[in-house]
Amino acid sequence: MDIHKLSRQLFLKNDSKIVMYVGDGLGGLPQQPGGKTELETANTPNLDKLAREGVLGCTIPVSPGIAPGSGPGHLGLFGYDPIKYVIGRGALEATGIGFRLEPGDVAIRANFCTIDADGNITDRRAGRIPTDESAPLAIKLREVKIPGVEVFVEPVKEHRFVIVLRGKGLEGNVADTDPQATGVPPLEPVATAAGSQKTVDVLKQFMKQARQILADQPKANCCTLRGVADKPALPSYEEVYGLKAAAIAVYPMYKGLASLVGMDVVGEAKTLEEQMVVLKENWDKYDFFFIHYKYTDSSGEDGNFDLKVQKTEHYDTAVPQIMELGPDVFIATGDHSTPSMLASHSWHPVPTLLWAKNCRTDACESFGESQCLRGGLGTFAAKHLMMVALANAGRLGKYGA
Amino acid sequence: MDIHKLSRQLFLKNDSKIVMYVGDGLGGLPQQPGGKTELETANTPNLDKLAREGVLGCTIPVSPGIAPGSGPGHLGLFGYDPIKYVIGRGALEATGIGFRLEPGDVAIRANFCTIDADGNITDRRAGRIPTDESAPLAIKLREVKIPGVEVFVEPVKEHRFVIVLRGKGLEGNVADTDPQATGVPPLEPVATAAGSQKTVDVLKQFMKQARQILADQPKANCCTLRGVADKPALPSYEEVYGLKAAAIAVYPMYKGLASLVGMDVVGEAKTLEEQMVVLKENWDKYDFFFIHYKYTDSSGEDGNFDLKVQKTEHYDTAVPQIMELGPDVFIATGDHSTPSMLASHSWHPVPTLLWAKNCRTDACESFGESQCLRGGLGTFAAKHLMMVALANAGRLGKYGA
Repeated sequence: MDIHKLSRQLFLKNDSKIVMYVGDGLGGLPQQPGGKTELETANTPNLDKLAREGVLGCTIPVSPGIAPGSGPGHLGLFGYDPIKYVIGRGALEATGIGFRLEPGDVAIRANFCTIDADGNITDRRAGRIPTDESAPLAIKLREVKIPGVEVFVEPVKEHRFVIVLRGKGLEGNVADTDPQATGVPPLEPVATAAGSQKTVDVLKQFMKQARQILADQPKANCCTLRGVADKPALPSYEEVYGLKAAAIAVYPMYKGLASLVGMDVVGEAKTLEEQMVVLKENWDKYDFFFIHYKYTDSSGEDGNFDLKVQKTEHYDTAVPQIMELGPDVFIATGDHSTPSMLASHSWHPVPTLLWAKNCRTDACESFGESQCLRGGLGTFAAKHLMMVALANAGRLGKYGA
Repeated sequence: MDIHKLSRQLFLKNDSKIVMYVGDGLGGLPQQPGGKTELETANTPNLDKLAREGVLGCTIPVSPGIAPGSGPGHLGLFGYDPIKYVIGRGALEATGIGFRLEPGDVAIRANFCTIDADGNITDRRAGRIPTDESAPLAIKLREVKIPGVEVFVEPVKEHRFVIVLRGKGLEGNVADTDPQATGVPPLEPVATAAGSQKTVDVLKQFMKQARQILADQPKANCCTLRGVADKPALPSYEEVYGLKAAAIAVYPMYKGLASLVGMDVVGEAKTLEEQMVVLKENWDKYDFFFIHYKYTDSSGEDGNFDLKVQKTEHYDTAVPQIMELGPDVFIATGDHSTPSMLASHSWHPVPTLLWAKNCRTDACESFGESQCLRGGLGTFAAKHLMMVALANAGRLGKYGA
């Protein structure tokens, strides 16, 4: 079922405001059987109040058993089927450093490597060159000039950098040039589908110039290209929901993901407190606000139960400031679970709270995994959440007569 | 997933009887947070008794967040995916007035309009001509004769009427002829897909004769054609479930929807009491009975909470008469929710009750939205309900060995 075929047909416009407040990796696990999860342990009086007034449920980010990365996790929350819409590796890497891809761009993850006098690779990661040495080299590669194509080179971390090609007729179907072995030269770029030959030609020119620029480097004297990818063709929030949407995030990855679906990335907040200031400043300008809080995930990834509890309590503290602005629909959820007991993203359904005037509340008393299991939203695929939000905002017309 | 691919493969025949008793728009909302819905407020001792003996759940008519019209709402209950099967506007309009479409029929919604001496539209709705003036004109249009094609013209309301074309080689892919503007003539019928040229030729002949017949009318001297549609290709209950099915409804729309899936429309009942008489008379002749009760919806649409409570109590009164006949499976549900607080169809899941000998009962004590949330059927897409009914009737074989 194509949700956006329905949404395009049914969406209405009105003055309502929808806030989606994402606690990254919000779901968790108890430390021992029968115990409480991080969210259940945390003192979250603001979310608990909304849980009593609103309706709870569990969202399944992709499909049962699947632990998603940040890309598919957020695409699901944004209502884009994460199986149908795939963000290629190069495009995700570019997005992750906050690079705003434009339609037709081709993005590539690149690795510095070391080659010997015969051109054979001796180290696929240039001796895991530290970032303070590799970043200036990536910037130096901006000297590459290719007629008719704009070339962007952005440092990432250690041996990694990103290349973005912008120009007419470029397509991203090009095989990796990393031979996944030493003692052999990097592979030549090869098109894997018709239509990508121009990209291959451009990448060959890039490689030729890059090797000249890097020739004197002791470690990073060459590079390999991986995950060549087009900007994913994601229809915008405006197009599929009729929503003018703003993203208020601290980390580049989430700004990037939001911009891929056409949200405006607003403000330069570095803290949750600053995010609330940005929200207030932009309240009158948008219909929909995606607010991203990172630390429920990073503390879970660190395997630190107590820290995740503490970060969840911090997440809760911003709720009154959001509610003071008078949203018509408020959602608190996560893009996936990150139980500190697993120290990783997991497949567990994600606790989800929806508050709205006509949401048909349930008997839940607080916001937590066990309560969510008994919630009125039931357990459902995250990709449907946006439709439920629109319905509660009075922004969906009737389907059929 | 194609449910009917499974059902065709697995259905068995036996002597069991299934009753689906639909309270249109059954689901509701409380008048204040934490309050009771219409169904929870109503005194429904008969349904409550079955709730204790049976199993409850919530059905999602189309998909989360979607408020369906009567067409998709009932298709879902009948087990036909309401996204896959779309009833075109002309076909729904014909169905809504009780016209029984046959395979190959093309149905059209038509509007009387007023044109000036130059043939330009001066009023797209013929001055909103009252029904007592427009109905005789629609009947007069039955004088149109087109060789090889049977033409039916049926009055609807005010400026609206329905045309049905019956003949070989007709297809419904024809654009609207209403220009959506005045000062211009009606558009010529144009085929939007190969195969519909014959329909276009027939409609041109219809228009030519209609203008002659209406020439002297002061207001309704022309018409426009909209929503040209084939009879939807819905496989029958007999075909997909092996069920001989009867529909007992008061309103033409629901008789029409039932006939689209091959149910026999039986009786001429005008009241619930008369519907029960018809049910008893036909009990031995059918395997499946669809009984439609309208007033839980119309009272909700009127925004009248107390009246919906009262109509829900009325809906309950027929239950003992149904149960007396000894059905093997009894279902009470709605095609969607119509909360009187919203005075419209809504997206909220629909309270659903299934009673059968081996249904595996749950702990629910009464029939209402909150109880249904804790019910043994869970929250699920309405299109699966028929399969659960068949299973409970012993009418489905094992899938795979």
